[in-house]
Amino acid sequence: MNFFLKTAIIFTSLFTISSCGADSVKDKQWRRLDLNNTVLMTLPHGKVVIELAPQFSPNHVAQFSKLTKDGFYDGTKFYRVIDGFVAQAGPKDGSEKDKSVALLDIEGEWSTSEKWSFTQVQTDDLFAGKTGFKDSFALAYDASEAKAWLTHCPGTLAMARGNLADSASSHFYFVIGQAPRYLDRIMTVFGRVVYGMNHIQAITRTSTIEGEYAIDRRDHTPIMSMQLMSNVPEKERIIIEVENTESSLFIERLVKRRARKNEFFYKKPPPVLDVCQVPVRSRLIK
Amino acid sequence: MNFFLKTAIIFTSLFTISSCGADSVKDKQWRRLDLNNTVLMTLPHGKVVIELAPQFSPNHVAQFSKLTKDGFYDGTKFYRVIDGFVAQAGPKDGSEKDKSVALLDIEGEWSTSEKWSFTQVQTDDLFAGKTGFKDSFALAYDASEAKAWLTHCPGTLAMARGNLADSASSHFYFVIGQAPRYLDRIMTVFGRVVYGMNHIQAITRTSTIEGEYAIDRRDHTPIMSMQLMSNVPEKERIIIEVENTESSLFIERLVKRRARKNEFFYKKPPPVLDVCQVPVRSRLIK
Repeated sequence: MNFFLKTAIIFTSLFTISSCGADSVKDKQWRRLDLNNTVLMTLPHGKVVIELAPQFSPNHVAQFSKLTKDGFYDGTKFYRVIDGFVAQAGPKDGSEKDKSVALLDIEGEWSTSEKWSFTQVQTDDLFAGKTGFKDSFALAYDASEAKAWLTHCPGTLAMARGNLADSASSHFYFVIGQAPRYLDRIMTVFGRVVYGMNHIQAITRTSTIEGEYAIDRRDHTPIMSMQLMSNVPEKERIIIEVENTESSLFIERLVKRRARKNEFFYKKPPPVLDVCQVPVRSRLIK
Repeated sequence: MNFFLKTAIIFTSLFTISSCGADSVKDKQWRRLDLNNTVLMTLPHGKVVIELAPQFSPNHVAQFSKLTKDGFYDGTKFYRVIDGFVAQAGPKDGSEKDKSVALLDIEGEWSTSEKWSFTQVQTDDLFAGKTGFKDSFALAYDASEAKAWLTHCPGTLAMARGNLADSASSHFYFVIGQAPRYLDRIMTVFGRVVYGMNHIQAITRTSTIEGEYAIDRRDHTPIMSMQLMSNVPEKERIIIEVENTESSLFIERLVKRRARKNEFFYKKPPPVLDVCQVPVRSRLIK
C-alpha cells in the first residue's frame, strides 16, 4: 500500500498538465453531486441519474435543464436505439412540440488557458494527442490548438442535431456501445450517466440486426418522467457521490491500472489506458 | 457510388497485408454460418446466436462445443455481471460439476506465416501495431513478433480462468462494455455474438454501483439452454449470415467510414478507425 502511495505522489506531476489546485481538492476522494445539476430520469424498468456539465457546455445544460423543469421530456420516447451505438430520445420529429424549441450553437470544444489543467490518462490516444479527466468527465486535449473537448464514452449524454453544426435543440442520446469517438468535437456532450446505466442498456432497441426489423413505435421505451433532482421530493431523491478525478487516490488508481501488478496478469499488457475504459466510480448515499 | 468503388479498388492493396485469396472470396459480401460452429443460447428474455472460432482457438471451441452438446450449461447462471465490463457464467465455483471439466492450455495468440493475411483496419492502435479483421473476427497483429490475436470487443466471447495462464475450463464471459483490450493475448477469445446482443445487455447485473449492492443469487439470469445450432430442430434454427470481412464491399465500407464524406460531418474527424467500433453486420435468413 505504501508503495502505491509513494508512486502516486511521484506520478501526480506527470499526470496533470499543471498544478491542479489546493491540497483539499486532491485529498477528497468523493464529490457529492449538485442537486441542481443532477437529473433523475425514470424509465418503466428503473431509475437513471445523470450528472450535467454546465462548466463545459453551459448553453446546452441550461436548455436541457429548462426543458426538464417544464416536463418537456415526460412521455417522450427512445425512438432510435441501435445496439452498440446510441439510445436517442426526443419529441416526434416535426411536431409542434419539436419545433417549439430554440436551436443551440454547438459547444463541442473549448479553448484552454495556460492555467487550465486536467488529470492526464494517456498520450497518443487513437483520436487525440492527450486524454484525461476533469470533474469526473472524460476528455481529450490538443496542445497545439490549446483546445479540449468531452469525449464520447459509454454513458455519455449528448445532444443530437441535423446536418448543420448549430441545429441541436431537444433531442438527445446516450452512448450505449464502444466509444464512437469520431463524434467528438462535432457534437455537444453535456452530461453522463452516474447511476442506472444497466437500465439505459435495457432500453428497447428500435431495430434488431440493424435495419432489418423495425420495432413498432408503440413499443418504444418511454421516459416516464425527467426531473431535476432539486425538484424531486426529498424522500425520493437519489443522492450520489462520484470519484473526484483530481484526487490523489484516483490518480493512484490510474497508476495501478496501467501497471497491472496483480498476478492474474502473468504477462503484462501494454502500459496504456483507454480513457473510455477507465471506470469513474459512483456510490449511492441514499 | 462509382467513386467509392474506385476508391475501394485502390485501397484493397493497402488494406490487406498480402493477397487474400481467390476473387470469389472477395466478391462474396455475406457468409452463411456453419451450423456446427454456431451456438444458440436461450435466455429467459430472448435468444442469442454465437459464432465460434475453431480456426483461431481450436481446443477452447472443442471443449465448449462438447460441454454445450452435453447440456452442461443448461441451468447455469450469469453470476458475475458488471455493467460496462463483462457478463460471466458457469457452474457453481468448486462444485463437482465445476471440477469435472479438464483445464485448457491458453490459446491467446498464434504465430503467423508469411502467407497469412487479414483485412487491415488501423495502424498504431493504442494496444497493437495493427488491427483488422479475419473471418469477421476483430484481431490485432504484431509484425515484429509475427503474431496475431483476437481482440476483446463488445460481444466477444472468451473463457475465464484463474491466475494461471492454463487454468480455463468451462466458465466464460461476454464483453458488454468498452473494449477491455488489456485482456488481449492473456485470455482465450473463441467466439462472438452475431445476433441478440441486446439480450446479452439485458442480463441482470450482479451488483449495482460496483460492489455496493449484491443481487441475490436466485435473481441471477439463468441460461435456459445452450445448443449447437446443428442439434436444434430444423424448424427452430436461427439461420444467420455475416459480412465477409475479406470482401471488396466490406473494405469499401471501411474506406467510407474512415473518410466520413457525409455532410453531417461538417468538420472531419481524424481518419482513424477503432477496430472494436467497426460494425460487422449480420442478417437474419430465417
